[in-house]
This record gives sequence, structure tokens and C-alpha cells, in this order.
Amino acid sequence: MIRVTIWNENVHERTQEHVKAIYPGGIHKCIGEFLAADDIALRYATLDMPGQGLSEEILQNTDVLIWWGHMHHDEVTDENAAMVVRHVQEGMGFVALHSAHHSKPFRWLMGTSCNLRWRHGDRERIWCASPWHPIAKGLPEQFELPREEMYGEAFDIPRPDDVVFLGWFAGGEAFRSGLTFTRGAGKIFYFQPGHEEYPVYKDENVRKIIRNAVRWVHQGREARCPMPVIMGEKLEP
Amino acid sequence: MIRVTIWNENVHERTQEHVKAIYPGGIHKCIGEFLAADDIALRYATLDMPGQGLSEEILQNTDVLIWWGHMHHDEVTDENAAMVVRHVQEGMGFVALHSAHHSKPFRWLMGTSCNLRWRHGDRERIWCASPWHPIAKGLPEQFELPREEMYGEAFDIPRPDDVVFLGWFAGGEAFRSGLTFTRGAGKIFYFQPGHEEYPVYKDENVRKIIRNAVRWVHQGREARCPMPVIMGEKLEP
Amino acid sequence: MIRVTIWNENVHERTQEHVKAIYPGGIHKCIGEFLAADDIALRYATLDMPGQGLSEEILQNTDVLIWWGHMHHDEVTDENAAMVVRHVQEGMGFVALHSAHHSKPFRWLMGTSCNLRWRHGDRERIWCASPWHPIAKGLPEQFELPREEMYGEAFDIPRPDDVVFLGWFAGGEAFRSGLTFTRGAGKIFYFQPGHEEYPVYKDENVRKIIRNAVRWVHQGREARCPMPVIMGEKLEP
Amino acid sequence: MIRVTIWNENVHERTQEHVKAIYPGGIHKCIGEFLAADDIALRYATLDMPGQGLSEEILQNTDVLIWWGHMHHDEVTDENAAMVVRHVQEGMGFVALHSAHHSKPFRWLMGTSCNLRWRHGDRERIWCASPWHPIAKGLPEQFELPREEMYGEAFDIPRPDDVVFLGWFAGGEAFRSGLTFTRGAGKIFYFQPGHEEYPVYKDENVRKIIRNAVRWVHQGREARCPMPVIMGEKLEP
Repeated sequence: MIRVTIWNENVHERTQEHVKAIYPGGIHKCIGEFLAADDIALRYATLDMPGQGLSEEILQNTDVLIWWGHMHHDEVTDENAAMVVRHVQEGMGFVALHSAHHSKPFRWLMGTSCNLRWRHGDRERIWCASPWHPIAKGLPEQFELPREEMYGEAFDIPRPDDVVFLGWFAGGEAFRSGLTFTRGAGKIFYFQPGHEEYPVYKDENVRKIIRNAVRWVHQGREARCPMPVIMGEKLEP
Repeated sequence: MIRVTIWNENVHERTQEHVKAIYPGGIHKCIGEFLAADDIALRYATLDMPGQGLSEEILQNTDVLIWWGHMHHDEVTDENAAMVVRHVQEGMGFVALHSAHHSKPFRWLMGTSCNLRWRHGDRERIWCASPWHPIAKGLPEQFELPREEMYGEAFDIPRPDDVVFLGWFAGGEAFRSGLTFTRGAGKIFYFQPGHEEYPVYKDENVRKIIRNAVRWVHQGREARCPMPVIMGEKLEP
Repeated sequence: MIRVTIWNENVHERTQEHVKAIYPGGIHKCIGEFLAADDIALRYATLDMPGQGLSEEILQNTDVLIWWGHMHHDEVTDENAAMVVRHVQEGMGFVALHSAHHSKPFRWLMGTSCNLRWRHGDRERIWCASPWHPIAKGLPEQFELPREEMYGEAFDIPRPDDVVFLGWFAGGEAFRSGLTFTRGAGKIFYFQPGHEEYPVYKDENVRKIIRNAVRWVHQGREARCPMPVIMGEKLEP
Repeated sequence: MIRVTIWNENVHERTQEHVKAIYPGGIHKCIGEFLAADDIALRYATLDMPGQGLSEEILQNTDVLIWWGHMHHDEVTDENAAMVVRHVQEGMGFVALHSAHHSKPFRWLMGTSCNLRWRHGDRERIWCASPWHPIAKGLPEQFELPREEMYGEAFDIPRPDDVVFLGWFAGGEAFRSGLTFTRGAGKIFYFQPGHEEYPVYKDENVRKIIRNAVRWVHQGREARCPMPVIMGEKLEP
């Protein structure tokens, strides 16, 4: 059983009519619906919940955390961000979606600004740069998203483990759109598509990628693997 | 003084009129002209020279080797390719241009097929993905090449050190167009632009990139740094 | 079912009495015995077999190739080495043991000399540098090999994906003893222990590591994932 | 001119007699003395200075920041740590010494716990794992520190760019003792030796490494290279 917690800022969906029309239950519910499977146990968490939807107990029982946030990154408390970062370091899988590039947990795991270029309202074509990668399993060579926010280079990230997808934008930009990282025992996948004003999470290829990513960042480990400070005994005379 | 050897297959320029019209002296001479500087000593080497323009003596006296090849990769002898690879491993800088992705020295240094997607006759926009990198020094955020051959993902290379440039093609593809690698003591830069049918090496930004790359892959080391097999003395009782 | 082929040079075991005494059936048989499991199908291949134990048909039906070689690397034909390299690039897992660091397939996949420091007859302590890695699963923080050949730095390899184990030698050296790499679709694990004069492959921790490694380099993919050259259709007007 | 700021916690040297005896002026002064050169402009900063020795103005005029801290990491304000991190991301070189592995700036740049194994009072042998690296220039294959604190694996860091040095400890451990990283435009070198109770910074090889490191993390850039958020104009119709 893979225990997945989907964290969502969930503000646009409640305050903007055109977003609500696309995701009436919130982006988190939409993601939960296409993730549903016999071996997946879902939990939802949103910024407006008590504790911002996060706690030691919740994260200890989360194998994979999916994160969507946009305009309210700063409202996530430093304590909650640090707690998420620590659980990732100890082996919780982390899938950061779209504008989560600027979320506290993602930036703190990267150690860089995660700044980038952006523009509203473009058309994107996603290319598979690592077709052998498990996250790319079952995907075509490329597919198109008729409407998506443009994210372009330079993207200020540390060297990724693998560049799984490259994005091409009709307006003239290119971007490293699907990236993997390792931090401590934790596997991380960043995926660029998912602007709230377009029905991106209803695209079947996007759904397949997120389904693959959840299984890939999940380690199948029985227990967390914290990397401790150890005062070692002398082994040699 | 940086001793630069420019190796060129030099077949298209002699056999195809429209290529000859662009590069009457061969691509190597064009590159040599814009590289010329007080602290650069140039040597030219072409496939039709004795020894294919390569020898132990030449490479021992080369700090940076630039390589352009296309349709005649297989004619380069295995001995010459292995000699180039060994000198790179010992610290000779290596700049592989355009279709040199399929040259023996580059493929042997990578350990992968270096296969990719391609198409004639497109327009490319080059984005700087690592603006802080010395190879990107003085470059604008992006620039356009009105005519270039399309190279697209998936590009079968090992994880690069840095992705310095991403290419965007009007026909719909994206590509990791400027990449650095380390092999042994040798620094390597692969740069995608440079199809022989278009005057790409007359573009001022392309010239700046290749000038920067020569200085970056050059280590300023007095001597080569071969990584030897050593039968070590026991150090501890 | 994971189809594992164990390739062994198998010369020392036939020509040197003290090696034969440790591995009467050859190192390959010893490895095969501790790998045996319900979901593992074993095949043995040795240098003295027809075709050096290798063929397109054999490799096409191999999910994971284990390689042990030492003094006869050069007798492996270039054709066979290139065939192994290609299958790794297309997704066959590859576990290179001990002196296989200098085998043709491993060197060609690395693109470096793979040279190192060495000395006979030492004691080694293996430290787990990435305890979260699946190859380290079930291993203690460190374990000792009472007798092993010393391999020391500098080890001329490209940047590995992960440093899973570090070796400490009583004689005074340290070494990156367990390393992962990716080449094309293929996952590679190099593991330093295994000199033929000592019963290293009878150590329970070494066996656990190799068992873990076989499962980790195996991708569970139904089919190979060659990275082709594609002449792409124009996608945009 | 390379403007180097040496930041030191400077507590042990004032409060413990045996440390004061080794570094009467503080570790920072000792480092400053061996760094002194015609093209180096030194500035000292300590925890007990106003602003903890740090300010926007100071960091803006610092090309390379050296950091030594141990028991008082938590007293460095979050504001100061974040300011250091941002300047590194924008291109200030950063040399983290010994127990600075647990300093706020280093941990925040890494995104991992940076935990490790440790023990007082051992003997270390430092091996050069990347002899071609500029930081290893002029160093012997290995050298010994008669007394040093043991730092051992597992060291919880993200994948480094290069492993320049490996440490071997007489007591039985091994460690990745010299490591490079890139974060944004900033180059980072972590170097393990330097426990305050032993005269490690009086060792000539250690001094050479730190002198090399200062020149290597320094980019020679006229200006910082912040990686901005850009709202891009549409380039294509």
C-alpha cells in the first residue's frame, strides 16, 4: 500500500470562478481521482486545514507527498516547511507540481532560488528526454498541452539527477520540465505543467506521468532511513 | 599560450558547391579566423592529411582540440580515435561541434550511443540555461539562428556536468544544445549548432560561445595529468 | 523472472591450485549458487566457451549481466565487448565485479581509463555511504573482509550517480568501492571486492550486496529501450 | 584582486586554553596569514562582532567567504544565514571548513541534514581522488595529519560535483573529505580537516588546499550573477 498525501494551497479554486469551474473540488481532489488504485491510500491536506493540513503524525504515515502551491507559499509556516523537508530527507517521496518550484519545501531541498522565466497563456509540447526512465513509462515521444503557463530557462536549480522531460513552448521558450533529485533518503520529482487556469490535470498523459512519479519516488521501504549523527567507537587499535 | 588544433572532416566544403560558397577555406579555417588571438596558437588538421591530421606529437602539443565531422566518422581509424580519447582523458580540452556527437572520439568518451532526433532546415533559438557559466559569458539571454539543422530529444548521453544552453526549434522540438562533461582530467564541451549548409559559424554569438569554450576546456595546466595504474607501497604496519 | 547471465574469465580457477581450492566450480558457479532464487533464471558464460560465451541471442535474453575478468581482458573480442556495451545502453543491467574495472565493456561504458592504485593482501572494511540505497538494504553500517586486494584512489572514473560504499584498507588507503552509473537505458553497479585468491564471494554481506545489485540494475521492463536515431517530421507550421 | 572574508565562530580560541595556545589570534587569523598574497584582500568576521560580522555591504564586497563554526551554529541568525546563502547563489565563492558542515549556510545550500559519524582524536591520511582538479594542484598523492577529529560515512550530502579528496582514518573509517558543489552561480568547496584542538591549519598541505580552493571558487566575474524571476515577452507569433 502506498500512502499518498496530496497537499494543495486550494485558494484559486475557492476564490476564482474560472478556476472553480475547472476544478470544482480543488486540484487535490482531481489528482486524487486519477491516482486512485487498489494499492494507493489517499489523504488530502490543504492550507486552510488545522495545522495547514500537516503534522508529524500525518507525515510519518505518508509515503509520498504531492505539493501544489502558488500565491500563498509564504503562509506555509517555517516549522511546517522544515518538517516536510526533514521527512523527505528521511525517505518520504516528494512530487512538486508546477508553481511548487517556489514553495518553501522545494526551495529548501534545492538550496537555490528556483527562479525562472514565465508568461501566461501559451501552448506547450512535452518531449521525453529519458524514454527509459520509469516516470516516462507508457508515454509517447511527445505530447501537446493546448494551454499552459510558460516556464522558461534559466531555471535556477542544482544539477538534477535526470532530465526526464523537456518542454517546448509555442511562444519561443524551452524548459527542463520534468526533473529528478535525491536529498538524503528521499526521491524528488519536479513536474512543470499544471497552471490552475487550464485543465492540465485532466490530460491523460499528464495523469500517467504523475501516476508513474508517485510509484517511482516511493521507495517501498518498510521504515524511514534517517541519516543520523553517530559518535563512532574506535574500530582499529 | 593556448595551443588549439581544429580538426575538420572537410569533405562537404570540397565536394558540394553550396557548402563551398559558405566556407571556401573549409569550416576549420572559418573557426580559426574567429578564434585568432594573441594568446592562441592555431593548427589545422583534416581527414585528408597524412595520418588524418593526427599524431602523438600533434596531440601532445595541443591544449584544446576542436572536432567537426559528419558523414565520414567511420573513416577515422580506431587508432586515431583511441589516441584522441586518451589525450582528452589526460587533460586535453575537447570541443565537439554539431554532428561530432556521432564521431568516434565523442561517442567513446560518452559511453552511450549519442543518438538523437534530427531534421533539415529549421530555425533555432538558443537559450542560456546557466547564465553564470564561463561559456555563457557575454551572451544574451537568447539568440536566434535563422537556419539550422534540427537536433531534438531524446539525446542519448550520460548525465552532463552542466546544461549551458537549451535549443528551441520553430518546427516544434527542444534540445540540450550546450553541454559540459569531464572524463579523467579532460574537460569537454558539446555544442549543437553548426550544420555545414548554413553560415552558422559566422554568427557572432556562436563565435563568442566557441571562443569562451576554448578557454574553459583549457586547464592552464603546465603538463598533462594522466591517471596511472599504481602498485602502491603499504603505508601502515 | 530475472534472467541473469554470469560471465567469468574462469582462468585462475582452472590454472592456479589455491584459487581452485576456493572456487572449485569457478567464481561464476559460486555467485550463481548464492543468487539462486525462485524468480532468477541463471545462465553461465565463460571465456573458453564458443563465442566467448556471448551472442546476440544470449544477451537479448539476459536482463542482468554480471562480469568478472582479470588477466585476460584483451582476449575478449572487440565485437563481443561492443555487443555487451550496446545491450547495456539498451537497458540490460550490468554488474562489474572487482578487476572488471579494466574490462573492455566497463571501460567503454565509462569513457575513462578506470586506472587505480592496487596492492595484494590487505584487510578491508566496507562502509555504507548511502544507507538508503536499495543496494545497501539489510547491510550493517560497516563490515570487514579479512583478506582482500587493495584498490585505492585515484580511481579514474566519471562522476558516478551514487557512491554506495567506501572501502577502508588496513594498509592505509581508501576507495570508492560501490558505485552506480547510468548509460543510455542501462543501470550499472561496480563493486570492488572479489580478488580470486580470497574467499570474498563466500562472505554473507558481499552476497547480500550482489543479490541487491542484481535486483536494482534490473529494470523490470518488458522490452529493451534502444535510443534510436530518428528523422523527425516537422510538427509546427 | 580577490576579496576574501574569513568568518570564524571564534569561541574555542577565547575560552579554551589549549585551543588558544594553538591559535592565539583565532583560527581566522591563522588562515588569513597563510592566504596572504598580493592579489588577495582579506577581511575578518567573527560571531561576536556587530551584526555577527556580516552585512549586505560586506558580502557584496566579498568574492570568497570562508566559514569556520562548531558549537554555536544556532546563534547565527536566520537572517544572516539566508543572506550568506543568497550571496553564494549569486556567485560568491564559499569554502566551508570542518564542522561548518553543520552550519546553517552550508546545510541550507545542501538541502540535506549533513549528518555524519565522528570521533575525537585520530590520525588521518588524505588521498587525492581527483589529481587533475585545480584544488589538488601541487599536492602529493596523499599526506598525513598526525592528529585530527574523525569524520566518517555516512555523510548525508547531495551528490557532489567532484570528490577531490578521500580521508582515511587510523581508527577504521573513510570519508569524502574534499567536495565541490554548485548552487546557482556559486561554487562551493567543503573540506573536512580542521578540528580546533590540533594545529591542522599549520600543515603545509592543508594550507595549499585552502589557497587553491579560494582561487577555484572565485569566479573572476566582474559582477554577481543573480538568477532572476523574469516575466518574458512572447517571442513567436
